[in-house]
Amino acid sequence: MPENINQLRDWQSPAHLAAMDAVDPQTHRGAMRHFASPVTVVTSRKDDDPVGLTATAVCSVTADPPRIVVFVNKQTAADSAIMASGALCVNVLASDQEQVARAFAGMVPGVAGPDRFGHGRWGELVTGAPALEGALVAIDCRVTKVFEESTHHAFLCEILATRERGPGDGTALLYCNGAFHHLPHA
Amino acid sequence: MPENINQLRDWQSPAHLAAMDAVDPQTHRGAMRHFASPVTVVTSRKDDDPVGLTATAVCSVTADPPRIVVFVNKQTAADSAIMASGALCVNVLASDQEQVARAFAGMVPGVAGPDRFGHGRWGELVTGAPALEGALVAIDCRVTKVFEESTHHAFLCEILATRERGPGDGTALLYCNGAFHHLPHA
Repeated sequence: MPENINQLRDWQSPAHLAAMDAVDPQTHRGAMRHFASPVTVVTSRKDDDPVGLTATAVCSVTADPPRIVVFVNKQTAADSAIMASGALCVNVLASDQEQVARAFAGMVPGVAGPDRFGHGRWGELVTGAPALEGALVAIDCRVTKVFEESTHHAFLCEILATRERGPGDGTALLYCNGAFHHLPHA
Repeated sequence: MPENINQLRDWQSPAHLAAMDAVDPQTHRGAMRHFASPVTVVTSRKDDDPVGLTATAVCSVTADPPRIVVFVNKQTAADSAIMASGALCVNVLASDQEQVARAFAGMVPGVAGPDRFGHGRWGELVTGAPALEGALVAIDCRVTKVFEESTHHAFLCEILATRERGPGDGTALLYCNGAFHHLPHA
């Protein structure tokens, strides 16, 4: 459990920028629809219970040290499990795993909580966070830093282990413009 | 110019996680190859000179307030321009703009610095950072917070203006497994 969630200080914008209004949330969502994002399921474990959610806000930070950042809504069970365990696994989905994406996004009626793990076959790598078999890659991490940004926590993570599906046998699942898409995995 | 770059404090991992070794940079890069990322050109302006670079490490943070995060290598001209101006524009490229991506990634021999802006047609929205015509969306931002993570700065940005290319007339440019790809823009 983290002792300290970092609170970032604002820095002073030049006056002409500080005077401008931000766009409304609808405009933000409209802009974000153009991002064709890889689809991941971010998992963790609280006590013995696996938790996970479908997420697209994951990106690489630095290769050395090997770090990624993952943004998770604070109101989710996954968030509290990550905060409690200090570990998470990012599972990058293949196009034949769209049903897994739907289950972990709450889009499959009647499937909630641990029942989500009935979709896909799950094991683990080194931290105990669930790792999806057949994911393009499963990325098992320890959290090294966390900060709060409005509705979300940003988890800066160091990669401890990865497992790749293997070359040539998967296509990528993407989310863009409110729909899933498949990309040939060259 | 920011007075203060945030220095995030580490938080204590549980002992069994803290004892584990991180993967090497090559393993990190291998894992990241599976992320099919939208391709953007992140621009800014230093004094009167436009600067920009091709980047895939951009993601949405929250819709309300409308915030995104952009990771930029500290050793670039774009980084120092963003630090100086407090503004940047994220241009999400369409598939007919692959040559722009190549120019701003330094992949076009003999094209460097401001000459990169000879590829594509450029205007601006509200901050003065260059905005690309025909981008799927141009997202003009002021930086609200910045923190340092090893080789990179993370710029947390508030969106001040966006310009969309318009519905139905563009396909998305992606980068995955070391190559550019095109995604039908549903």
